[in-house]
Amino acid sequence: MSRVVSDRIRALDGYAPGERPSADARVIKLNTNENPYPASPKVVRAVEESLARLHLYPEPMSDGLRRAAASLYGVEPENILVGNGSDELLGLSFKACAPDGGRVAFPVPTYSLYRTLAELAGCEVVTATSLEGRVPPEVVAADADILFLCTPNSPLGYEIPVPELEDVAQRASGLVVIDEAYVDFGGTTALRLIDRFDNVLVLRTLSKSFSLAGARVGLAFGRVDLIRELAKVKDSYNVSRLAQAAGQAALEDPDWMESNASRVVVTRKRVAVALGAMGFAARPSAGNFLWVDCGAFGGRATYEGLRDRGILVRFFDAPALTSGVRVSIGTDADMDRFLTAITDVAKTH
Amino acid sequence: MSRVVSDRIRALDGYAPGERPSADARVIKLNTNENPYPASPKVVRAVEESLARLHLYPEPMSDGLRRAAASLYGVEPENILVGNGSDELLGLSFKACAPDGGRVAFPVPTYSLYRTLAELAGCEVVTATSLEGRVPPEVVAADADILFLCTPNSPLGYEIPVPELEDVAQRASGLVVIDEAYVDFGGTTALRLIDRFDNVLVLRTLSKSFSLAGARVGLAFGRVDLIRELAKVKDSYNVSRLAQAAGQAALEDPDWMESNASRVVVTRKRVAVALGAMGFAARPSAGNFLWVDCGAFGGRATYEGLRDRGILVRFFDAPALTSGVRVSIGTDADMDRFLTAITDVAKTH
Repeated sequence: MSRVVSDRIRALDGYAPGERPSADARVIKLNTNENPYPASPKVVRAVEESLARLHLYPEPMSDGLRRAAASLYGVEPENILVGNGSDELLGLSFKACAPDGGRVAFPVPTYSLYRTLAELAGCEVVTATSLEGRVPPEVVAADADILFLCTPNSPLGYEIPVPELEDVAQRASGLVVIDEAYVDFGGTTALRLIDRFDNVLVLRTLSKSFSLAGARVGLAFGRVDLIRELAKVKDSYNVSRLAQAAGQAALEDPDWMESNASRVVVTRKRVAVALGAMGFAARPSAGNFLWVDCGAFGGRATYEGLRDRGILVRFFDAPALTSGVRVSIGTDADMDRFLTAITDVAKTH
Repeated sequence: MSRVVSDRIRALDGYAPGERPSADARVIKLNTNENPYPASPKVVRAVEESLARLHLYPEPMSDGLRRAAASLYGVEPENILVGNGSDELLGLSFKACAPDGGRVAFPVPTYSLYRTLAELAGCEVVTATSLEGRVPPEVVAADADILFLCTPNSPLGYEIPVPELEDVAQRASGLVVIDEAYVDFGGTTALRLIDRFDNVLVLRTLSKSFSLAGARVGLAFGRVDLIRELAKVKDSYNVSRLAQAAGQAALEDPDWMESNASRVVVTRKRVAVALGAMGFAARPSAGNFLWVDCGAFGGRATYEGLRDRGILVRFFDAPALTSGVRVSIGTDADMDRFLTAITDVAKTH
């Protein structure tokens, strides 16, 4: 144990990302909600063009990228902060709004990084269970420095309706982070709430719908004064030239993203129907994944059975989640293999 | 002012990166210690090859990159943490070793980010002035959670000898961060101290000697248990696929780096001699920059005179630094223009 590291940090486990198979091309990875389709050819060209200037520091505020985002989303560039993935932006919200500890709140189950970051920051955590699109009153009443809402929710797939988000923003005393990582797969954005609420920060990532998980680009939208404060606590050069080039080109080619997102949605619907026919209940989902209830068989056995058949899905050993698995939507061929495998797993029950 | 942001953060100014000229190709930028030579062609190829998998998350621990670094530097991969620039690694040292505030210490002048990060983290800062390669006793005796030593020092260019660093590591109670951003330009590394001291973290960046400022890759070297704790507090996917590919290829081609670093050193020596002949005293420097004392004329007037002639250097409005400017070493052609311009500026005095 390192004596120079704080006891509080040593006691933590840290965040556990989805497992990564060793370089075995036969494994189908449906456990981290990646997009199965590649990034736009325009992204490839833009990154290639950026290589000649790799010896120079990038723009601190990712100016070109945020102009592209502003144009696509109908806001001003000053309403946007670009991050090294939305994970960095989540971390910045702690640094700006709860720098000396404090209290954060969120419905569970949700993206587990919120809790990890809260523990790192020494924050008290208030949670209440929600399995559908309502924000539990205890979470809103917690008087939290930051309230996190992941909508569409991962891992369950439900959406929180915009009027509900509006009501929460009105009642919350602290920052309300609306994490829309999955919104392009059929969700309804709450982005316009930043016009009316000075405590709303809407997060997007280019990792999912824009097929840029490997590039690390996230966007935070908020009022100009809020964005200015968050920019103060970021690293100066937080987004590389390569990622800025990739992100800008992706945002300038929304047709590519929408086409891929549509394919994922069509596949998701087909898989949900097929699972239903086999007796597995897939919850309605507005993300690029399905939450599959595995009944008495349970999530762990399903996860293990699929893993043994070369398919990785996500099992969460957490309250309300042990009965199912989260399955990312891959290509149609991937999902056919998944359906065959889960049929096979079910037979062993 | 944003009501949801902490008062402590609102009161801060944040870090000010070197100014960036608007896209005026005629301006020569000698203010952020970038390498004037491009990255290795092998870097370009490696990034291009990584583009096909941009839709997939990168390796959380940058495995390929750290194997390349381990091989080059003669340590184990587990002794290395890869960061989104060494700025991120500096931030992680605060998160791990002073997560609830605390005390940090460093000689001044130095890299101004140490103070910025300390203020963000709510840490007490102990400093003492050092203009040469000795660590002031007050800094060592401060009983700091983290002690930062930038060697070769920016902006002054001096080195702290390894035996002095060893003595500090022995006497310090907390983490000793040895920031070797500039060591490839003629410095002596203290890397081997990690074999004997569990409280030493050596930082490197690929931004300077490896010509990768635009890619954001930093390396932290330390004992395995220390690296493991630092890894806990980083974002899962902190380094993009693009940056990992760039960094790995750069580390696998050290000849390219060494050749460019040698050219910079030769130019630095030539410029120092020329400045001396003109009556400007350039301090001995082990970095890719020179600290130029401007005498009675002062740093600000020199900075402004050069800026008016299309050359950006760095002026620091800080104690012990107002009498000079820091000049990054560019190409020989850049430096000829700089020498002509500073001659012209001197005439106006």
